[in-house]
Amino acid sequence: MIETDIIIIGAGPVGLFTVFEAGLLKLRCHLIDSLPQPGGQCSEIYPKKPIYDIPGFPSVLAGELIDNLMEQAAPFKPGFTLGEAAMSIDKKEDGKFVVTTVKGTKHEAPIVMIAGGLGVFEPRKPPISNIADFEDKGIEYIIKDPEFYRGKRCVIAGGGDSALDWAIFLAEKKIAKEVVLVHRSASFRGHLDSVQKVIDMAGNGQINLITEAEVVGVEGNGSLERVKIQHNTQGEMTRETDHFIPLFGLKPSLGPIADWGVEIEKNAIKVNTLDYSTNIPGIYAIGDVNTYENKLKLILCGFHEGTLAVQSAFARIHPDKKNILKYTTVNGVQGF
Amino acid sequence: MIETDIIIIGAGPVGLFTVFEAGLLKLRCHLIDSLPQPGGQCSEIYPKKPIYDIPGFPSVLAGELIDNLMEQAAPFKPGFTLGEAAMSIDKKEDGKFVVTTVKGTKHEAPIVMIAGGLGVFEPRKPPISNIADFEDKGIEYIIKDPEFYRGKRCVIAGGGDSALDWAIFLAEKKIAKEVVLVHRSASFRGHLDSVQKVIDMAGNGQINLITEAEVVGVEGNGSLERVKIQHNTQGEMTRETDHFIPLFGLKPSLGPIADWGVEIEKNAIKVNTLDYSTNIPGIYAIGDVNTYENKLKLILCGFHEGTLAVQSAFARIHPDKKNILKYTTVNGVQGF
Ligand SMILES: Cc1cc2nc3c(=O)[nH]c(=O)nc-3n(C[C@H](O)[C@H](O)[C@H](O)COP(=O)(O)OP(=O)(O)OC[C@H]3O[C@@H](n4cnc5c(N)ncnc54)[C@H](O)[C@@H]3O)c2cc1C
Ligand SMILES: Cc1cc2nc3c(=O)[nH]c(=O)nc-3n(C[C@H](O)[C@H](O)[C@H](O)COP(=O)(O)OP(=O)(O)OC[C@H]3O[C@@H](n4cnc5c(N)ncnc54)[C@H](O)[C@@H]3O)c2cc1C
Repeated sequence: MIETDIIIIGAGPVGLFTVFEAGLLKLRCHLIDSLPQPGGQCSEIYPKKPIYDIPGFPSVLAGELIDNLMEQAAPFKPGFTLGEAAMSIDKKEDGKFVVTTVKGTKHEAPIVMIAGGLGVFEPRKPPISNIADFEDKGIEYIIKDPEFYRGKRCVIAGGGDSALDWAIFLAEKKIAKEVVLVHRSASFRGHLDSVQKVIDMAGNGQINLITEAEVVGVEGNGSLERVKIQHNTQGEMTRETDHFIPLFGLKPSLGPIADWGVEIEKNAIKVNTLDYSTNIPGIYAIGDVNTYENKLKLILCGFHEGTLAVQSAFARIHPDKKNILKYTTVNGVQGF
Repeated sequence: MIETDIIIIGAGPVGLFTVFEAGLLKLRCHLIDSLPQPGGQCSEIYPKKPIYDIPGFPSVLAGELIDNLMEQAAPFKPGFTLGEAAMSIDKKEDGKFVVTTVKGTKHEAPIVMIAGGLGVFEPRKPPISNIADFEDKGIEYIIKDPEFYRGKRCVIAGGGDSALDWAIFLAEKKIAKEVVLVHRSASFRGHLDSVQKVIDMAGNGQINLITEAEVVGVEGNGSLERVKIQHNTQGEMTRETDHFIPLFGLKPSLGPIADWGVEIEKNAIKVNTLDYSTNIPGIYAIGDVNTYENKLKLILCGFHEGTLAVQSAFARIHPDKKNILKYTTVNGVQGF
């Protein structure tokens, strides 16, 4: 049993900054995330893209922001349970909560903060019946490390930025031996620049572009060896490949959060803006996962919400102690 | 008459970031501040001190934060009326507001955001009857540019960090020809390190330290020539000097803000946390100047407040337009 003061479900930017704010009040935090790395949407969806509306940063890469938040939280030594979705929250007789993950890891604390963003991320998968047989055996839904594809033949599917950008990247940097991009339609949803670039690269043979076609079958002996592509007019063709990477986007779903007894509205958790508490005393919801009148799903709003929520948590944990706001400039940051 | 979409009274961090958020909604801002430079408390009180609780900055100097916020707001070309306190807000028949400064400069807009922090800063002055005669003629209450004192004889008064740090700085860097530090008591309120340093520097003659004494008189012919110092036990002495710099701190006072008809509570403006609006439709209050249940006077909270307030302002200015939140990462920042 992992014991702490505050269990934070979701290690996105909001959960991470909340560790820092809790630490200032001498409260310890443990973060749980279903993803293998901290950072939420910033790390998973757009780590290399700039954000322009984080106050004080005219521009900051989403991944850099997460690195900074990790460094800022570090003095308060947060615990992490990564790669495990939190499945249940149970209240014990002594009033503490026990949060259990999908792998059975148990965490206990008087306070739970749900910072679950849009929920658990799941990749959108193409409807190929035996696809699961080749997952992590040649089929990946997310490109974690492009080096993994060095010297390999890759079939990427999709028509959005992710598919376009990775096709360009793997081909232009000559990482993959061969890049095939398969897209259902003749037009793309991505940035105009990227679309133009892919078309140019297809023209000079760097990318093998197959539009108005879909990957409909995957085959191999243990690991992936080839895909079957159905073209709208040219019929079916077979393509030898080492990897098939369908980049159809991630689809977040509240998932287990919907079953925890917290009031749900508009697919998010309803909170009281006084302290971002839910209907269950001791459970708070901060960041993208919550909703209230005039809610904006912005990172900077989540920072404020987490800050107010830990003040309220402090009052619950220490009903006897008076908490006087001290400026960090004046008091410094005393880590654990 | 200066015309704009939003008049922001107070160019502290919160007012500055609000320019950026308003700009994203294509609303123009004009800032008014009684201080000669933007940045509010950060620039005026502690520009060289680190802040540790700005999300994403493990540490940032207050002055740096302001530079960054200025850069972030720059694409939206804010107007500035600096060095002039806003004295009145009048509502015209067409519903627009006119804000007039102490120097008579007039500004007109459909929206006013009060981001006045703790109010207008005024230095605490020693009770010397003719002191006003020498203000800016040898007597300064704030050190704006240390170079101003190069080669000059300076009498500094005060026992806090500001007096200690400036005495050390002017003497150690050999900027002033002579530094006299006069303090009422034998003990200091400043950092232990600074106190020790002043004592050491007094020991080796770099600072002339006179404790248990007060400057009680100022004299000169047009500009300051000498001060009279009353020592608790040694009686009165006269000291020739070019400058007398009483650093007794700044005392903010709501000042004119209290007369604008906005509801005041605990020396701050009461707001509705739905959008940080005041009791007067079209006037908002954000940052340190406002109050609501659980209010924290933190910079990061003001960022959130300003962001929500401009959304509401947009709806007032464009009741017909629907405003859909667009991520800056996706849409970029289109300046004016
Ligand atoms: C392309 C894109 C561009 C964006 N641009 C901007 C921008 O410019 N400015 C801006 O402010 N915002 C932007 N956003 C939104 C911003 O990323 C979110 O507001 C922010 O990530 C929310 O942070 P969070 O910590 O609340 O949640 P998230 O970042 O969503 O993190 C939540 C975490 O909780 C985890 N989780 C959920 N349920 C569970 C569970 N049951 N068990 C364990 N873990 C769980 C998830 O795996 C996830 O890691 C953008 C988003 C996208 C997708
Ligand atoms: C020593 C010190 C350390 C601090 N440390 C921290 C910290 O670590 N973290 C943190 O979050 N906060 C800290 N703070 C508080 C932080 O500085 C304030 O929360 C912040 O400055 C508030 O920003 P603001 O824009 O609301 O107001 P302010 O910065 O107060 O700016 C308000 C501006 O409005 C102007 N003004 C007021 N009335 C009028 C008028 N009638 N006409 C024209 N102009 C007017 C003032 O001149 C001023 O420039 C600290 C403060 C101090 C003094």
